Amino acid sequence: MYELGVVYRNIQRADRDTATRLGALGSATVHEAMGRVGLMKPYMRPIYNGGQAGGTAVTVLLQPGDNWMLHVAAEQIQPGDVVVAAVTADSTDGYFGDLLATSFKARGAQGLVIDGGVRDVSVLADMNFPVWSKAISSKGTVKATLGSVNIPVICAGALVTPGDVIVADDDGVVVVPAASARKVLEKAAAREANESGKRAKLAAGVLGLDMYNMREPLQQAGLRYID
Amino acid sequence: MYELGVVYRNIQRADRDTATRLGALGSATVHEAMGRVGLMKPYMRPIYNGGQAGGTAVTVLLQPGDNWMLHVAAEQIQPGDVVVAAVTADSTDGYFGDLLATSFKARGAQGLVIDGGVRDVSVLADMNFPVWSKAISSKGTVKATLGSVNIPVICAGALVTPGDVIVADDDGVVVVPAASARKVLEKAAAREANESGKRAKLAAGVLGLDMYNMREPLQQAGLRYID
Amino acid sequence: MYELGVVYRNIQRADRDTATRLGALGSATVHEAMGRVGLMKPYMRPIYNGGQAGGTAVTVLLQPGDNWMLHVAAEQIQPGDVVVAAVTADSTDGYFGDLLATSFKARGAQGLVIDGGVRDVSVLADMNFPVWSKAISSKGTVKATLGSVNIPVICAGALVTPGDVIVADDDGVVVVPAASARKVLEKAAAREANESGKRAKLAAGVLGLDMYNMREPLQQAGLRYID
Amino acid sequence: MYELGVVYRNIQRADRDTATRLGALGSATVHEAMGRVGLMKPYMRPIYNGGQAGGTAVTVLLQPGDNWMLHVAAEQIQPGDVVVAAVTADSTDGYFGDLLATSFKARGAQGLVIDGGVRDVSVLADMNFPVWSKAISSKGTVKATLGSVNIPVICAGALVTPGDVIVADDDGVVVVPAASARKVLEKAAAREANESGKRAKLAAGVLGLDMYNMREPLQQAGLRYID
Amino acid sequence: MYELGVVYRNIQRADRDTATRLGALGSATVHEAMGRVGLMKPYMRPIYNGGQAGGTAVTVLLQPGDNWMLHVAAEQIQPGDVVVAAVTADSTDGYFGDLLATSFKARGAQGLVIDGGVRDVSVLADMNFPVWSKAISSKGTVKATLGSVNIPVICAGALVTPGDVIVADDDGVVVVPAASARKVLEKAAAREANESGKRAKLAAGVLGLDMYNMREPLQQAGLRYID
Amino acid sequence: MYELGVVYRNIQRADRDTATRLGALGSATVHEAMGRVGLMKPYMRPIYNGGQAGGTAVTVLLQPGDNWMLHVAAEQIQPGDVVVAAVTADSTDGYFGDLLATSFKARGAQGLVIDGGVRDVSVLADMNFPVWSKAISSKGTVKATLGSVNIPVICAGALVTPGDVIVADDDGVVVVPAASARKVLEKAAAREANESGKRAKLAAGVLGLDMYNMREPLQQAGLRYID
Repeated sequence: MYELGVVYRNIQRADRDTATRLGALGSATVHEAMGRVGLMKPYMRPIYNGGQAGGTAVTVLLQPGDNWMLHVAAEQIQPGDVVVAAVTADSTDGYFGDLLATSFKARGAQGLVIDGGVRDVSVLADMNFPVWSKAISSKGTVKATLGSVNIPVICAGALVTPGDVIVADDDGVVVVPAASARKVLEKAAAREANESGKRAKLAAGVLGLDMYNMREPLQQAGLRYID
Repeated sequence: MYELGVVYRNIQRADRDTATRLGALGSATVHEAMGRVGLMKPYMRPIYNGGQAGGTAVTVLLQPGDNWMLHVAAEQIQPGDVVVAAVTADSTDGYFGDLLATSFKARGAQGLVIDGGVRDVSVLADMNFPVWSKAISSKGTVKATLGSVNIPVICAGALVTPGDVIVADDDGVVVVPAASARKVLEKAAAREANESGKRAKLAAGVLGLDMYNMREPLQQAGLRYID
Repeated sequence: MYELGVVYRNIQRADRDTATRLGALGSATVHEAMGRVGLMKPYMRPIYNGGQAGGTAVTVLLQPGDNWMLHVAAEQIQPGDVVVAAVTADSTDGYFGDLLATSFKARGAQGLVIDGGVRDVSVLADMNFPVWSKAISSKGTVKATLGSVNIPVICAGALVTPGDVIVADDDGVVVVPAASARKVLEKAAAREANESGKRAKLAAGVLGLDMYNMREPLQQAGLRYID
Repeated sequence: MYELGVVYRNIQRADRDTATRLGALGSATVHEAMGRVGLMKPYMRPIYNGGQAGGTAVTVLLQPGDNWMLHVAAEQIQPGDVVVAAVTADSTDGYFGDLLATSFKARGAQGLVIDGGVRDVSVLADMNFPVWSKAISSKGTVKATLGSVNIPVICAGALVTPGDVIVADDDGVVVVPAASARKVLEKAAAREANESGKRAKLAAGVLGLDMYNMREPLQQAGLRYID
Repeated sequence: MYELGVVYRNIQRADRDTATRLGALGSATVHEAMGRVGLMKPYMRPIYNGGQAGGTAVTVLLQPGDNWMLHVAAEQIQPGDVVVAAVTADSTDGYFGDLLATSFKARGAQGLVIDGGVRDVSVLADMNFPVWSKAISSKGTVKATLGSVNIPVICAGALVTPGDVIVADDDGVVVVPAASARKVLEKAAAREANESGKRAKLAAGVLGLDMYNMREPLQQAGLRYID
Repeated sequence: MYELGVVYRNIQRADRDTATRLGALGSATVHEAMGRVGLMKPYMRPIYNGGQAGGTAVTVLLQPGDNWMLHVAAEQIQPGDVVVAAVTADSTDGYFGDLLATSFKARGAQGLVIDGGVRDVSVLADMNFPVWSKAISSKGTVKATLGSVNIPVICAGALVTPGDVIVADDDGVVVVPAASARKVLEKAAAREANESGKRAKLAAGVLGLDMYNMREPLQQAGLRYID
C-alpha cells in the first residue's frame, strides 16, 4: 500500500445521490447499518457544530509538515466530493486554511476530512465549509516532498478508497465502500424508519426493557434485583 | 467494590431541593465548599455549552462496548435524577444516543454523566438533554454482558454512591455525598454571597493583593519587587 | 532561567498600536510572517469561539496547584496587556475564574493565556474576557508558594519575554518578540494584502497549481499522473 | 468522601498471609477471581520489571505538587503494608525518591503505588523497592498543604480503602477489599490450579476451540468458515 | 471493509524465507526500502526488549473487551506466522496472556502484534514469545461477540492483508504487502550493504555533510554560518 | 526567537569539569539545586536504563519530518557535548539512528536529547550511546528544509541555550544555564553531602516527621490524628 508520487485521475465514484442520502441519515445510523465498522477514530472532530457531509472521497496522502499534495488534489475534485487527507506520520500542523478552502469550494467540494490540523477556522465557519480534523493549528507547512492523490489511504484508523462515500457530522466520520453504498443505504433507511416508532413509544414512557424484550435475556444472564 | 449483575431498587436519594440549589450554585463554587475534593477529571466535557444539572445519582456500571445496563437503569430513574455511568475499562464508544435520551427524559432524568462516549449529539442538544462525557463517537455497542445499577461506581476519578448529588455545568462535574449535601449547600451559598461584594470591589479596581491582605504573607515568603 | 520569588515592575512593552494591528491580522498570518516559528502548542484552545487578542505580555510563573502569583500579576497589568501564565509542572487545575477576570479586566487586560486550567468559563464568555488554556476545570488552587512575575517563561512550548506581542484567536497563540514586532507587522500586512488577490482568483476556479506555478517543480520531483 | 487533614491510626488490615498469597498469584489471576473489577488504570506501570507486591494498603491523599503527607504516612506503616498514594488533581511530579524509600523500607513497607511521579528510580531499583507510578520525574515538591492518611482514596480509577489488599506486578495493580480477600484467594487459587492442566494441553497442540467447547457457540453466533 | 463473522482458511502467504530475511534486516531498514510507508503508529511497543519477528500475517478483528476470535485464530496459524489483531474500537484491555501464548507457540506462531493490551507479560518474556502492543493490562475480556479472522484489518494505523510480511523489533512494526515482499527485500538488503561502508567512514570521523555531499544543497537552501 | 537557516560556530560552553560533576550528581539533585526549575517534561525518557550524561549543549532546531540539520550539527560537536534537538512542531518521527550516532560518537558527543523520535535503539544501546527522546519510531525523515544549529531552542518545555549544561539520567533531563553552572554545582554537592546523613538516620528507623521537625508545622496546619 501507499504508492508515492502518483495522481490517479480516473476514479470510480459511488453514486452521488446515494452519497447525499447517506449523508442525510447521519454517521451513527450509517455506522450501525455497516455492522458497526468503518468509523474513523473519535479524535476526528468538526471545526464547527452542525456541519454535515455525504459525498465521494478524493483521497490525499501528505508528508508530515508538507501540504503540497492538497494543491495537487484540488484539480481532481468534482462537485459533491469530500477530500480525505492522511499523513504518513502523526502531525497536528495546519495543512489547510481559507485559501485552499476557497479553491476546494470553487471546485465543488463539500468538505474536508484531515488526519492533521487546519487553520483559519473562523473563516471556514463563515464560508460554511465543514472540516473534520485532529487539531486546529496556525502552524504552516512546506511544499517539498511528494505524496499521492487518489490512492487508498488510512485516515484516523479507517481505510478510504477513492470514490468511497464519506458520511460526516457532529458524531464523527464513517466510510462506506463504494460497492456497498446502495445496500448500506437501504439498511440505514430501514433502521431510520424503524426508529421513529420506537422514539414515540419511549417518549410515552415505555421502557426499552419491554420494547426490546430484554427482561428475559437479562434474567437468564443472571441479573438480580435487590430491594 | 463492584458487585456485578445486580440492580438496587431502593436507594437513599439526597434531598431534591438541596440538589437543585447546589446545581444552581455551580460546580466551581460547590467544589470549593467541598474543600476542593469530589471533582471528576477535567476530560469530562459537556456535549453543548450552557447545560446544567443538579440532581441525584442513579449509577450504572457498564462493560466496555456494551450498553445493556443503560436500558436496565432507565427503569430506576426518578424525576430529578442524573444518571452516572462508569465503564469497567477505558472506552470511547457511543453508549448513548437519542433513543435512550428520549427514554431517560420521559422518566424524568435531568441529564447523563458518562465515562465513555455518546452519539446523536446534535439531537441531544435540540432536546436540551445535557450530557457530560469523555468522547463523542458514532461507535455502537452490544448488549451481551451484565454490569450493575445503583452500586457505588468510580466515574472519571470520582466515587459516586447512588443518591449522591451531581452538580454539573460548563466547568465540570462535582459529586456531593448525600450525607453532606445540606452542609455543603450552606457553605457554598455563604461563599457565593461573599463573592458578590468582592466582585464589585475588584471591578472598581481594588487589587486582590489588598482585598485579601496578601502583601504581608507574600513579603514573608520572600517576594522581591525589582524596578 | 526561571528566577523565583521576583516581580519585575518595569518591563519594555512592544508598541501598543503594533500589537493591536498584529492581533487584527491573526495568528496564522503572523505565524507565517515570523517564518513559521513562535507558535504555542495546539492544545492551547480558546474557551469560547471568536475571542481575539493582540497585546503585550505580562508573564507569570505559577507553581502547580497554586495561583498566588496571578494576584501579584494583577497589579502589573497595564491597559492592552495580555497575561501569559506558565506553570512549573504539567497541570490542569482551575487557576483562574470570574473574580480574577473581573480584576484583570478592571486593570485593562485584554485576555489571558494560561498553560493550565480555568473555571467559570460561561461567566468569562458573558464578560467577553477571552482565555486560551489547556483545560477547563473547577479544581481550585492554594496560595502557598512563590513563583514570579515578568520573567521570561515558557508557555505551551513557546518562550515569552515580558513585553512581547501576543496574538491569539481561534487558530491559536503566537508570540512575537518585542524587538521584531514592527518588522513582523510589515511582513504580515504584506502577506495579507497579497492574499486577497489570490483568494479572488481561487474563488474564480483558478488552481493553486497554476497560480503558484507548481506544475513544473512537481514534475521535476517526479509526480506522475495516471489515467 | 475525602476528609482532609486527618490521619487514621487504627485501620483494619486484611490478613497478612492472605495478602502474601494473593500477591504470589499475581494481578491477572486475582483480577479474574474478582469478577474482572478492581483494577487500576493501565497507565500505572512498575518502575522496573519483576517487582511484585501483595500487601495491605496504607492510603495517602496528596495535594498536587506537595508530598508532605508521605512523611506523615511513613509513621503509619506496618511490616507488609503497601503505601497507596492518590493526588487531588492530575500530576506527574516526583513526590517520592530514595530518602522516602529508605524510610518506608525501614518501616517494613513492601512498595508504593502512586498516581503521580517518582524519582531516583535507578536507586529504587538497586534497593529492590518496587513502585508502580504514572510517571517518572525529577520534579520536586513542596510541603505546604494538608491531605490525609488512611482515608478511602481513588487511585488510578480504583477505590482503595485502608487495609485492602494490593496485588501488583508487571501486569498492573489490583485492589481486593479486605472483607473479600479470603474468598478471592480461594477463587484465584482454584483458577490457578485449573490453569496448569490447560497449559499442558495447549502446549501439546490442543486448540482452545476444542478444550473450551467453543465450536458450537461460535456456530450458533453465526461464524462462517470460507475456503 | 470489515466483513464480520467470517474466517478465511486459505490465505496467500508471502514466501517464508523472504519474510525471515526481511525480519533480520529490521523495521527501520525495511521501512526505508518501502519508501517510508507501511509503519504502524509508534505507540506499538514490544513487551520486552530484543524480541524480533519476520513472518506472515494471520489477521484477527476483535470486538472491544472480547477476545473470542483469538481462539478462533489459533487454528489458522501455520509455522512462521505472526498474528496481527485489530479491535473495532480503541481499547487497552488484556486480550492475550500466557495460555493463548502457549497455544499460539504450539501452532508455530512467531509472535503477536495487537492494537490493544496484553497480560502475563513476565511469563511471555520467559517463554520468549514476543508481543507488540498498545498497552499492558490485567483486564480480562469476555467471549460474546463475533469478529473475523483473515480479513484485511487496520492495526495501529497500518493496513494488514492476510499473508503480508510483518517485520517487528524494538523500533516498531512494519507491514510489507505480500506482492512486494521480494522487491522490498532486494532494496532493503542493498541499503543494508551500503550502510556498513558508511558506518566505517562515519566512525573514522568523516562527516555526513561530506559523505552525502550536503554542503552545496545546504548553501543553495541559504544556510549561513556565523562565527 | 528562532532564527532560521543559521549555524553558530562559536558558542560559549560551560566548564566541562563542572558539567561532568553535575552529571554525576544526577537530574533530581541538580533540579532541586536549581530551585525546582529547568526540567524537561517527563515524557522525555531514556531509550535504555542506566544511561547518564553531564555535558554542554549543542542545539539543533529541526523541521517536522526532516533531519537535515542533525548532519549539520555533527560538525559543531566537541568532545563532551550533548546534542539537544527541538522540532518546530510536535512529531514522533525517527530523526536519528545508528549512522548518526556513529558520527556523533566519533565527534565526541556524550548523548542526544531530542523532542521527537529515534530508531535503531537496540544498536544505540549496544553502542552505549544514550538518548533521551519522546518516542521510538522507525519512521524515516527527509532532508529538505533548513532549521538552525546553536540557537536557543525550547526542548520538551525547557529553554536550552547553546553551551548550557545538560544533566540527564533515568529520572529525566535538567538544563543548567552556563552562567549558573558553578553555583548550582556547589548547591547540588552540598545537598548531596547532606543527604547521606539523612539516609542513614531514615534507614535506622528515624522518621522524617522528627528528622525534619515537621510535627509542629503539621499541627499548626491543623492535622488531626484519629484513633
